[in-house]
Amino acid sequence: MKIIRTIPGMREFSAGIRGQGRTIGFVPTMGALHEGHLSLMRVAREHADELVASIFVNPTQFGPAEDLAKYPRPFDRDCRLAESEGCAALFHPDAAEMYPAPYRTYVTVEELGGRLCGISRPDHFRGVATVVLKLLNIVAPDFAVFGQKDAQQAIVLKRMISDLNVPVRLIVAPTVRESDGLAMSSRNVYLTAHERSDVPRIYEGLRAAQRLFESGERSAERLLNAARDTYNKASAFKSEYIELVDIASLSPVKTVSGPALLAVACRTVESNTRLIDNIIPGGEI
Amino acid sequence: MKIIRTIPGMREFSAGIRGQGRTIGFVPTMGALHEGHLSLMRVAREHADELVASIFVNPTQFGPAEDLAKYPRPFDRDCRLAESEGCAALFHPDAAEMYPAPYRTYVTVEELGGRLCGISRPDHFRGVATVVLKLLNIVAPDFAVFGQKDAQQAIVLKRMISDLNVPVRLIVAPTVRESDGLAMSSRNVYLTAHERSDVPRIYEGLRAAQRLFESGERSAERLLNAARDTYNKASAFKSEYIELVDIASLSPVKTVSGPALLAVACRTVESNTRLIDNIIPGGEI
Repeated sequence: MKIIRTIPGMREFSAGIRGQGRTIGFVPTMGALHEGHLSLMRVAREHADELVASIFVNPTQFGPAEDLAKYPRPFDRDCRLAESEGCAALFHPDAAEMYPAPYRTYVTVEELGGRLCGISRPDHFRGVATVVLKLLNIVAPDFAVFGQKDAQQAIVLKRMISDLNVPVRLIVAPTVRESDGLAMSSRNVYLTAHERSDVPRIYEGLRAAQRLFESGERSAERLLNAARDTYNKASAFKSEYIELVDIASLSPVKTVSGPALLAVACRTVESNTRLIDNIIPGGEI
Repeated sequence: MKIIRTIPGMREFSAGIRGQGRTIGFVPTMGALHEGHLSLMRVAREHADELVASIFVNPTQFGPAEDLAKYPRPFDRDCRLAESEGCAALFHPDAAEMYPAPYRTYVTVEELGGRLCGISRPDHFRGVATVVLKLLNIVAPDFAVFGQKDAQQAIVLKRMISDLNVPVRLIVAPTVRESDGLAMSSRNVYLTAHERSDVPRIYEGLRAAQRLFESGERSAERLLNAARDTYNKASAFKSEYIELVDIASLSPVKTVSGPALLAVACRTVESNTRLIDNIIPGGEI
């Protein structure tokens, strides 16, 4: 596996692959790789001849009071994991390579970026859309794979790729969970032991809503209440939002009649860790 | 010359050229072609094997009170002119092809888009950056050629292309003028006879500043006053702004010490036509 730190180096590597008539599957990450990321790499390899991943803890998607500085960066371990998944190249630029002064250009996806997580993280999706567009322009993949765990991110990026005519196919892969249902996240390492034992309730609440949906319930209020009932029993976290929204517009629905996203964000009490999860009752992104 | 109205059709045409190992030079326009546009096409042909132009009167770069509806659209004449310049394909989508509902994604170039013309046209450069990025993604050219006449546009796009790592080389070509110095513009057709006889003063004012610069003057105030003296004699137009700015940041300079842009926007009294012009004393974009 080649570790590439410069934009011209990455472009040259991709051009070499394309020159052989081979396709590229791309998995952009912020590192601290877990089984969720590795599952995205496997999906990318199923679709494309070569796998390229990136590790870049993107400063423009963190708010001023967020965890940019403490975000985990186990780079050597990440390299071993990416290589074990058959990654041909790992793009690992630093912030000065990606945002040389005087950097000024940002991509916004109106409406979608301001809902759900965008309420407490106002510039987050602007930062995500911008860095992903940059990475797509640099890596020039045929496919890019994102996880359903970050559903709003996938929906924002799908809209951006379509709106800006970016020549790439976006693939959304299923959320990978721990055996107790907790969605895998690089931020799970922040959790205290007490929090870790309580946060599986996040998915339990979503599953309660899912079961009610499968029994025929379509009222958003009643589906959301099934999840809320579970969260009210939690001591280690509080929900920041829990919403049932249209999967394309992210605007709240009253009754589920088409593809909808049931999304939740929680914050733990002790370590102040923000965790998100979601289900898509009867649909996909 | 092939006239292409769909995005897949344009992509296919470009892929065919690239598949032959040939390069593409691209000139995006809003039509109403004049000698200025044709000069850009000639520059594109000098740099690339094949010339592609586009004609799209982009609604997102017009303000609500601007001239979107009355902007001239002499399409048959434009086709003849583009063909006579050796254009291989003319991309001519409609607004629904470029901005299908629910369109939501915009590209902003902070600071640069808000200065000079951005003060009276607040969303103009957001619309320009967005449509040009879309066109670059669709046409996938090796070179894209813009005119120095729209200097702020060229500077905003140069920043965007660099910031977003768009794989294209931007070329800025000189302003083409009528014999009396008036910069060619599709909007010149709006002018009344009286206005048309007075507006060559716009460039005369810039030339007066240029002569003073060449004589060694570096004070922005004195250079600007040389132009203002000329504009004060005009009866058919008023200047909206006249500024001397750093060519990278577009922030005003007090003394010319590096590449600077002397830019002016005027509005005519009778037909309310907005005209812009500029010089770059001792430099280029």
